[in-house]
Amino acid sequence: MDPRIREHADVIADHSAGIEAGDRVVIAMPPAAADLAVALHEVCGERGATPVYLNNSDRASRAFLRAAGDDPGFETPTHHLALHEAADVFVIARGGANVTETSDVAPETNAAWRRAYEPVQRERLSKTWCLTQFPTAGHAQLAGMSTEAYERFVWDAVTTDWDAQREHQAQMKAILDEGSTVRIRSGEETDVRMSVAGNVALNDYGEKNLPGGEVFTAPVRDSVEGTVHFDLPLYRQGREIADARVTFEDGRVESFSAARNEDVLASVLDTDEGARYLGELGIGMNRQIDRFSYNMLFDEKMGDTVHMAVGSAYPETVGAENEANESAEHVDMIVDMSEDAVVEVDGETVQRNGTFVFEEGF
Amino acid sequence: MDPRIREHADVIADHSAGIEAGDRVVIAMPPAAADLAVALHEVCGERGATPVYLNNSDRASRAFLRAAGDDPGFETPTHHLALHEAADVFVIARGGANVTETSDVAPETNAAWRRAYEPVQRERLSKTWCLTQFPTAGHAQLAGMSTEAYERFVWDAVTTDWDAQREHQAQMKAILDEGSTVRIRSGEETDVRMSVAGNVALNDYGEKNLPGGEVFTAPVRDSVEGTVHFDLPLYRQGREIADARVTFEDGRVESFSAARNEDVLASVLDTDEGARYLGELGIGMNRQIDRFSYNMLFDEKMGDTVHMAVGSAYPETVGAENEANESAEHVDMIVDMSEDAVVEVDGETVQRNGTFVFEEGF
Repeated sequence: MDPRIREHADVIADHSAGIEAGDRVVIAMPPAAADLAVALHEVCGERGATPVYLNNSDRASRAFLRAAGDDPGFETPTHHLALHEAADVFVIARGGANVTETSDVAPETNAAWRRAYEPVQRERLSKTWCLTQFPTAGHAQLAGMSTEAYERFVWDAVTTDWDAQREHQAQMKAILDEGSTVRIRSGEETDVRMSVAGNVALNDYGEKNLPGGEVFTAPVRDSVEGTVHFDLPLYRQGREIADARVTFEDGRVESFSAARNEDVLASVLDTDEGARYLGELGIGMNRQIDRFSYNMLFDEKMGDTVHMAVGSAYPETVGAENEANESAEHVDMIVDMSEDAVVEVDGETVQRNGTFVFEEGF
Repeated sequence: MDPRIREHADVIADHSAGIEAGDRVVIAMPPAAADLAVALHEVCGERGATPVYLNNSDRASRAFLRAAGDDPGFETPTHHLALHEAADVFVIARGGANVTETSDVAPETNAAWRRAYEPVQRERLSKTWCLTQFPTAGHAQLAGMSTEAYERFVWDAVTTDWDAQREHQAQMKAILDEGSTVRIRSGEETDVRMSVAGNVALNDYGEKNLPGGEVFTAPVRDSVEGTVHFDLPLYRQGREIADARVTFEDGRVESFSAARNEDVLASVLDTDEGARYLGELGIGMNRQIDRFSYNMLFDEKMGDTVHMAVGSAYPETVGAENEANESAEHVDMIVDMSEDAVVEVDGETVQRNGTFVFEEGF
């Protein structure tokens, strides 16, 4: 086994999820990430933790969802929920052999399943969890890279100096924690304002997301006003959503379009009422992730980007005075901030064309 | 996908496990059985059942068990138990890519894990479950067959006429249900008696085991007397146990030996006190399984064999007056009955050299 896989498992166990004796661990991985799962089982054995191994198979999910038909009466998987309730730590890897495996599942079917699954997702988010990436050929292809180069890209990002990253990001966390109003402008089309007053900015340095590299918070639910052109694409339900344009009024998505797979975006926004509101504002700050790879786990961390997620807010980012947006969905979308772009907090420019106020060259 | 895989899934869903709308299903399969898992997910979607997909990976289990070291403090996987408690139906497939994958796990470690896992196993056995086989290259190799021939062997056995098999076996079930004392003699070495009085013989026609093809009951725990030479080998913990010889006194294993991997047999018998007693007597009756394949799921069903299992009894085979043997283990071992062999019930010969009293040529 490539020794970097065991290093990856060690970073998960030591830094991200903190796997300890007595922990009930759920290891949920696609088939192609089998080696990482094996390394994590070894870690569990060494530490006296107890693993359960779930197969996150896109092929199986697709077969289930397609067979359910046009009007699926999905029920919440209460047995899966019971597993989640009794577990302490979740390690989830992405890494499908074919990232478009679920591309022929109807978006409405996906949305219906998400609604049924939402209690499971909520339970998991209330526990210790880490979402990471296994470098498969399918994801390398999506990024337009050789498999070997993509492996290096992923494992370099996973094993970075997280202490240094934390300190770098702490500066942006302080600005957001002290600030009230955030305005984001980019190019001709994007100009959006929102309040973050009373909410909490979190410093993501590779714990729940591995790699990490962002500072994120929750917008006050009804405060978002303006238009955003999400000019970097994303994959959702095995399909690329490109050039999404969204207009918010009183926090709610009032109109939207996409140049590609607009129906997938529509199904996301139609999942439930909460999917029409922003749950997250994130500022990408990881300079080591220096290329776009069609993978939100990496792309949203890039240094010259901000992202906003429609759907559920992370409860820990929501202050006691504010209400957390709830939804079965959470879909991040990215704005390129490298050119003709500004982030302002309470009227002060804190990032210009991708460079932060606390960085050289501002 | 080979159409026989979907047929296999249909037999499981229609005949063996009876998957219905609303069922909480657990699909537990090794990586190499992915196609069968996909087909079962499709079945679940069609029927309104809800699947959870566990990865039964020998590589992961081995890594976990070896890493736990010489004195492992295994805890019962309570999160796994919670999943089992909340589920209705279990479909488990065997089919490792390499059947000797766990051959370098210490037998004592295996036994310790079995003890910790026993509540999970007991919970599963109390539900609707089906154990089946996926025809992998590794199992074909074990059987000394080409993969294609082995696929035919497995899928022919799975899709047999189970109604006819049930009727054939009902004759043996009636004999055991009416009988009290069973004596089994084979060759020079095997001569064992046991009482089955008050216990119930079950007719296995492809429900809990697929393929099925046996009639089985529980010996009265303390009644087993005599010596058995299990002359057909078995695989356990990735290792072959060959020519096990076991002597019973007052039901308990008082001495034993094996020509190969005696330490594995010892670890089985040392798992707990119940592993020293028989939990099952089974009569193989499936004439379609006409060759030995080093796979207990098939071998114990062969028409010219009987088998006995040390360890836990199936509660449904134990009458109200008798006590069910409890153990974390259940290990079947086979006696060849094709030559110089007799099964007697209450002094009457019911099988001679593999031919039953109700078959032609007796």
